[in-house]
Amino acid sequence: MNAITAPGTLTPPSHDSAAIDLAGIGIEIFAQIEALAALSEDGPKLTRIFLSPEHRQANDRMMGWMRAAGMTARVDAIGNVVGRYEGDHPGAPVLLLGSHLDTVRDAGKYDGMLGVVSAIACVAALNRARKRLSFAIEVIGFGDEEGVRFGTTMLGSRAVAGSFTDDLLERTDHTGKTLADGLIAFGLDPQTIGDAARSRNDILAYLELHIEQGPVLETKGAPVGCVTSIAGASRFEVDISGRAGHAGTVPMSARNDALAAAAECIIAIERRCASEPGLVGTVGQLTVAPGAINVIPRHVRFTIDIRAPDDAQRLRAIRDLESEISFIRATRKVGIDIRLIHELKATPCAPWLMKQIGDAITAEGLPRIDLPSGAGHDGMAMIDVADIGMIFVRCAGGVSHSPAESITIDDAEVGARVLMNVIRNFTPGKTP
Amino acid sequence: MNAITAPGTLTPPSHDSAAIDLAGIGIEIFAQIEALAALSEDGPKLTRIFLSPEHRQANDRMMGWMRAAGMTARVDAIGNVVGRYEGDHPGAPVLLLGSHLDTVRDAGKYDGMLGVVSAIACVAALNRARKRLSFAIEVIGFGDEEGVRFGTTMLGSRAVAGSFTDDLLERTDHTGKTLADGLIAFGLDPQTIGDAARSRNDILAYLELHIEQGPVLETKGAPVGCVTSIAGASRFEVDISGRAGHAGTVPMSARNDALAAAAECIIAIERRCASEPGLVGTVGQLTVAPGAINVIPRHVRFTIDIRAPDDAQRLRAIRDLESEISFIRATRKVGIDIRLIHELKATPCAPWLMKQIGDAITAEGLPRIDLPSGAGHDGMAMIDVADIGMIFVRCAGGVSHSPAESITIDDAEVGARVLMNVIRNFTPGKTP
Repeated sequence: MNAITAPGTLTPPSHDSAAIDLAGIGIEIFAQIEALAALSEDGPKLTRIFLSPEHRQANDRMMGWMRAAGMTARVDAIGNVVGRYEGDHPGAPVLLLGSHLDTVRDAGKYDGMLGVVSAIACVAALNRARKRLSFAIEVIGFGDEEGVRFGTTMLGSRAVAGSFTDDLLERTDHTGKTLADGLIAFGLDPQTIGDAARSRNDILAYLELHIEQGPVLETKGAPVGCVTSIAGASRFEVDISGRAGHAGTVPMSARNDALAAAAECIIAIERRCASEPGLVGTVGQLTVAPGAINVIPRHVRFTIDIRAPDDAQRLRAIRDLESEISFIRATRKVGIDIRLIHELKATPCAPWLMKQIGDAITAEGLPRIDLPSGAGHDGMAMIDVADIGMIFVRCAGGVSHSPAESITIDDAEVGARVLMNVIRNFTPGKTP
Repeated sequence: MNAITAPGTLTPPSHDSAAIDLAGIGIEIFAQIEALAALSEDGPKLTRIFLSPEHRQANDRMMGWMRAAGMTARVDAIGNVVGRYEGDHPGAPVLLLGSHLDTVRDAGKYDGMLGVVSAIACVAALNRARKRLSFAIEVIGFGDEEGVRFGTTMLGSRAVAGSFTDDLLERTDHTGKTLADGLIAFGLDPQTIGDAARSRNDILAYLELHIEQGPVLETKGAPVGCVTSIAGASRFEVDISGRAGHAGTVPMSARNDALAAAAECIIAIERRCASEPGLVGTVGQLTVAPGAINVIPRHVRFTIDIRAPDDAQRLRAIRDLESEISFIRATRKVGIDIRLIHELKATPCAPWLMKQIGDAITAEGLPRIDLPSGAGHDGMAMIDVADIGMIFVRCAGGVSHSPAESITIDDAEVGARVLMNVIRNFTPGKTP
């Protein structure tokens, strides 16, 4: 039983899991995941973009499930869907649970959605048990985390965290429509986005369950893990300008081959990033011009994505790579232009929340595995308004952003049980 | 004067250049080059593809110029335009001059066309001087050398050399039309292509003037050069299959990054080919899938083009690279599939023709520069039916297959003077 002495004063509840029935919760979660996966602009592939008709359908579905779970439900000023399960007194502070409902193109169906659906499933279980806690629970399904449509990520959580800036309204999608246009078409008013922002005083914590999207838990044989920090990331766009020439007639010594220069950069990035644990670096896009079998490449554009759980580590790697790339530019006599296009600091999870997540994992008889998140998550925005914690669920092969993304029903159930455990034993804390 | 004792018996003529007026020949050539450059499917760019409406227009133009130069003119069974300037007796054996009229996409205007136009200009000068030689001259403008439309090169010269095979008729262009369809639409009969073939007995030699498409003559300060051999070439298509993954979550040590593997291959190709003079290797096309900034590349496809004036040298380099690539496959645990998609042996120029070209160059008071051709030319097909010789004309920066391709009027004139000199002093020879 949760004993509340007075509104606003909380005492730690006991760990009585018997009162709440979680039987079949994995199946319930999987059924909802499948229903969401059908809301796609290019089915049978899954692509659901911010402020699209499919986004609206997903919000409508979520609100139905939220209401069935005993929550009030609404769409906020930026298109996030928000459900609230009242605490044992009106206006209680909020434990915020959430993840995102948007996807990359040809996506997997667990990335984002699993966290929202699992949170609703936990609330539904509380509601079935007619259990109210000393705090309210709100579940948010963020409308944009992936950033596919407007090329900038976490629009949904930035609005909630109050860090959304009006210049973002002018961002355009590939058809030239602005974010402001998109909001209006969705029935929202761009002038009121500030209304989506929450106050730190109202929120006890932001807690997100998400698939790992990496291979660490699988390698360690653990269904769930506790996130220590979300890696910081820097992304660059690089242009290399060489000199085109006939593949048969220009001696090797007279070439300034843009692709050979890019290849040397790629190897340098890989080598530097492999030199320290935690650090990762990826060249994911690369295009060659003119791109003919018998023409020496004149121009190559590629991207670099560098991440590390520790900001100093990331910045050190970037400095080293910039000097390596300068050396390649000088020795190959090519032009190299490097532009920083995205940067996010590392986001630490709150130790007091990690402790409660860890206790919930061990309460399930599982080993506590702590791991950083290499992927970005809404917590990176939410840290502006709340302490954050994350539970990771194992996914097959670490594969994500792919239709091959998969988890087991058993792991979905373990994830939900751990989340339930954190919720019902939740004790507000504060990062010193 | 060329003194002919009897039909079929030739005596070397004297080097009397005074009788033939070449004044303004550079300007004449340039004017025709400009007229041809306007026949394009995507003007102001220059793109003229085999059996296209622009190909027909170019043939019509050429036939007009040929007739104006005193030649009979016709289109042969594969769409080459052929002009004949009769010798001093009917049915005399033929000195064949030529080059190609098709272009790459967004091409330069000298590649191919310079050789055809210069040959016509020489015949025009002979005709103006009412000079007949002891042999006929035929000028061919080949319809396909670049191979842009049907993905296989030198269809025009292969038909003339008798090495055209009927399976080629089933090759398709990017719209799915076959070569047979294209010939019919052009007004030709695919069943009669054999009629384009010439007999070795009729042809004294095949002589081609072409821009160098490389930087060697420019580096040596020479307007023209004598080609020693056309490099052999091998082209490969390579598929690397790695494993996609999230750029933030998969540790470097757990990756099988297809692009990093390709980068290592590219560096290996460059290093091996730079290790011997003459040998060149190029990776000109490369595509990455899925090609997202935050996804580890799952698949890369790229091309390799390897050339050398000496076949053994080329094959040695290929063997070494195959073993290097096998090593990369094994250490990176990726799939690598290498397919040979094109192979041409090196084509030696006939020493007796090189001697006459060299004499013509020195007769102009120029140093004789001998150089291999790294680019492929119609001579690679024509060698099946005739000894071949080539005159190279300097081009700016070695740039070709580009709108930036350029030569000077002065160099065009020197090229034509040398060609004229070879023609009028031509003495049939034979490679022992």
